[in-house]
Amino acid sequence: MKSVSIYDTTLRDGCQAEQVAFSVEDKLRVAQALDQLGVDFIEGGWPNETNPRDREFFARGADREWQHARLSAFGSTRRSKIAPEDDPQLEQLLASQAPVICIFGKSWDLHAREILRVSLEENLAMIEESVAFLKSQGRTVFFDGEHFFDGYRADAAYALETLRAAVRGGTDLVIPCDTNGGSLPWQIQEIMELLAAELTVPLGIHCHNDSGLAEANSLTAVRTGAVQVQGTINGYGERAGNANLCTIIPSLELKMGLSCLPEGKLADLTYVSMYVSELANLPHNTRQPYVGRSAFAHKGGMHVNAVIKNPSSFEHIAPEKVGNQRRILVSDYAGRSTILAKLQTLYPDLQRDDPLVQQVLDEVKQRENRGYEYEAADASLSLLANRIRGEYPDLFRLHGFRVIVEKHHQEDVPYAEATIKVKVNGDEFLTAAEGNGPVNALDSALRKALLPKYPELDDMQLVDYKVRVLEATQGTATAVRVLIQTTDGEETWGTVGVAENIIQASWEALVDSIIYGLQKHLARRTE
Amino acid sequence: MKSVSIYDTTLRDGCQAEQVAFSVEDKLRVAQALDQLGVDFIEGGWPNETNPRDREFFARGADREWQHARLSAFGSTRRSKIAPEDDPQLEQLLASQAPVICIFGKSWDLHAREILRVSLEENLAMIEESVAFLKSQGRTVFFDGEHFFDGYRADAAYALETLRAAVRGGTDLVIPCDTNGGSLPWQIQEIMELLAAELTVPLGIHCHNDSGLAEANSLTAVRTGAVQVQGTINGYGERAGNANLCTIIPSLELKMGLSCLPEGKLADLTYVSMYVSELANLPHNTRQPYVGRSAFAHKGGMHVNAVIKNPSSFEHIAPEKVGNQRRILVSDYAGRSTILAKLQTLYPDLQRDDPLVQQVLDEVKQRENRGYEYEAADASLSLLANRIRGEYPDLFRLHGFRVIVEKHHQEDVPYAEATIKVKVNGDEFLTAAEGNGPVNALDSALRKALLPKYPELDDMQLVDYKVRVLEATQGTATAVRVLIQTTDGEETWGTVGVAENIIQASWEALVDSIIYGLQKHLARRTE
Repeated sequence: MKSVSIYDTTLRDGCQAEQVAFSVEDKLRVAQALDQLGVDFIEGGWPNETNPRDREFFARGADREWQHARLSAFGSTRRSKIAPEDDPQLEQLLASQAPVICIFGKSWDLHAREILRVSLEENLAMIEESVAFLKSQGRTVFFDGEHFFDGYRADAAYALETLRAAVRGGTDLVIPCDTNGGSLPWQIQEIMELLAAELTVPLGIHCHNDSGLAEANSLTAVRTGAVQVQGTINGYGERAGNANLCTIIPSLELKMGLSCLPEGKLADLTYVSMYVSELANLPHNTRQPYVGRSAFAHKGGMHVNAVIKNPSSFEHIAPEKVGNQRRILVSDYAGRSTILAKLQTLYPDLQRDDPLVQQVLDEVKQRENRGYEYEAADASLSLLANRIRGEYPDLFRLHGFRVIVEKHHQEDVPYAEATIKVKVNGDEFLTAAEGNGPVNALDSALRKALLPKYPELDDMQLVDYKVRVLEATQGTATAVRVLIQTTDGEETWGTVGVAENIIQASWEALVDSIIYGLQKHLARRTE
Repeated sequence: MKSVSIYDTTLRDGCQAEQVAFSVEDKLRVAQALDQLGVDFIEGGWPNETNPRDREFFARGADREWQHARLSAFGSTRRSKIAPEDDPQLEQLLASQAPVICIFGKSWDLHAREILRVSLEENLAMIEESVAFLKSQGRTVFFDGEHFFDGYRADAAYALETLRAAVRGGTDLVIPCDTNGGSLPWQIQEIMELLAAELTVPLGIHCHNDSGLAEANSLTAVRTGAVQVQGTINGYGERAGNANLCTIIPSLELKMGLSCLPEGKLADLTYVSMYVSELANLPHNTRQPYVGRSAFAHKGGMHVNAVIKNPSSFEHIAPEKVGNQRRILVSDYAGRSTILAKLQTLYPDLQRDDPLVQQVLDEVKQRENRGYEYEAADASLSLLANRIRGEYPDLFRLHGFRVIVEKHHQEDVPYAEATIKVKVNGDEFLTAAEGNGPVNALDSALRKALLPKYPELDDMQLVDYKVRVLEATQGTATAVRVLIQTTDGEETWGTVGVAENIIQASWEALVDSIIYGLQKHLARRTE
């Protein structure tokens, strides 16, 4: 099978994105995940004087064994009027020990003139000499023609000259860049075809998403013969982002019949996408094609009905191919089919006409109006169905709690404490606990009270706690929605609470999370 | 100028998106915003028996005066083996009084056979007769060929027959749909060119984003002659979403030289995008092309430097054209140029080599490591610079606060109360306040304490309160970041607080928001 090489720049261009910043440790973890996924090149950063973080990444990366990928260091051409061997920035690139070096040069005359403020001839010399110098040091060299497509529209002959300068320098690959992300697919196609005819070295492609076309433009370039795609995980990048490898890789493999990753690795893509977003500490984009949580989520009643009959009726690929999964959403738009499909995961024998289906639907609609949301709170939905069926377990009863946060001086760290009284199987427990905040203190006090009767609680751990302030437009005044994810190591479950008071909303979600977890473990006790 | 008509289906297909649900009131507000923007058609919903919300929308919509747009009701072809005039669903479409009716039919034989379970002949009859019946009632009729592109790949001749059936019925427009979002731009191009040659009525296009190509496919279809684009604001829609009109409209107008909106309206696009996301109660996608908050945000030091010299160096269009704006981000990746540009908005005479620049940069880096984030907290950044310059105003001093949340029975709404002691200009104030939650109670108590000395506080209002739980990987243990937006009607400013305790984090952000606002108003007092 024909193959396309994948050049990941999440750790360099991706870090230009608003709100994305990785520590060195994070960068190494991302690189390791990318290597396991099987990308060919990992651009780790720009190891220059003002960027100790990236220098450290390469220093530590050089000692590691990489299974598949080669590390690439990014940098620029030499400064003007200086020999390449005297340029400290090129020296740092070599010092990084990266086997691949990718340098960018200016392909748009406007940038050479107005931003670098060098003559057009000097710009060409900077490109050719920098590439030749790095090649002479035994490295693989890639040349990013920055703003090539804008440059081509402004002065086609000069833009082409900048790439020819890199070819004369001996570059292994020329990558025209749509740096401002303003090009249309047919413009990319026309220019890439021309380059393929004009240049003697292979071509790559590097696109940005300012017009929402980064993926289309990248695929189009590959169709015209580009052998490498540069992009980032989740499309992270400056402004509207870079070409999204999580979209491009499956399109290349599943729709264009090209190979990018080692056999079997495509199914790791969703995991890698979520892992990188976790390290970036950004919410995962649920609407992301292929790998988003919603990418194979069905909500419309008719669609749900059809997907149950035949998945390909509303799915362009099988979600398992990229490691994602089908989801049936619960919502007042959903109708009976959706609720039924969901409830059948709890009660496999449930019939379509069971009154429970309508009762749950009614209750969900009513609660959604108050701000609840069950799409990420399966466990709360299941408890809601239990409650309607009269099967809600009576594991404890709250007699009251008090949470206090105090601060005594302007510079103080405040003190949080909670007391709680609960009755478990006829015995009363009154406990107190501190915490680093009020919710944490309340959670600790509740666990302390329940632990003597339910030692299983020790295995359950809160892994995510999200707060959303609901707008007044959403109905009843300003409410707060709390979503909690809890795990016992085997399974992770979501619960929800809504109230005007954040403590009450958290309490609801906490109680649901504990009841759901205990119910499962208690069932085992009796087995 | 050649024009393309815009058919918005945010209120129908957009509502199939996970987490999107509009009340009737919301729908009317969205429709009004779309009408003011100047789209040609607003698909308000599917007014069938099981959807009272959409029936009410059309009932109320029929009474309104629409400046530019025409309302369209969406529905399906008649049921099998029934005359169109006896079909209750078609009857509801007519009862909606919508001047335009858009019905979909099955263009993929698989769907006719396996999902509808009708013969291929009956499917054709259902299409032709339904269109003819609606036309006979004097409506404009559009025909959505559902799954047309998949259908064409499976059985080209039959797929084409389904469109011909609609043409025989008298449809005003045929819209082939890429319902599963699996098509590539060159496939769309080839098939659209063929349809343009085969059919005698104009063509539209309706794409989904499952392969990240909805915008590219829509633009490609227009390039082959489609006269209408169907899509949604912000690309809301099932799974990975629909074609995003906020991306397509500016590309058509600014890059392809076609007109879509009335003169001057393109500059309202960012506002409409944000307004709809607010009504949907979803965070606005900051990375969205053209209209996202980050779409023209510059972070890399070199980029910031270049954009200051010449905006077109890193912007594909002028942000004002779509009503967006350039932003210079503050971050430890930013370097001096960024911090300088930001500080110069506070201190216009500040020189590049002023030591303040480095001091602020150092402090920002250090705080970002602890979880602070200044991109959305300009006011906190400005106070940080004030503090370093020794210009931080000494408006009050905290002597302590206590926040209590109590709940006495399982079914109770908990009670929140705060007491606070502050010193203002030598006078002590001890106040207490209740609230619907602990932060609200603390905010109220603080305002109550400050109001006698600072009556200006009455004009300031908290408009947004966000909480983010920071991951343990982000450095020091689990911390909470609170971002607050405050307004005085003239200006809105953002502040940030970070602490392990949510009350402390909220306190920091509250204090910054009050100090920043008071500082501005006190400056006026003395003018």
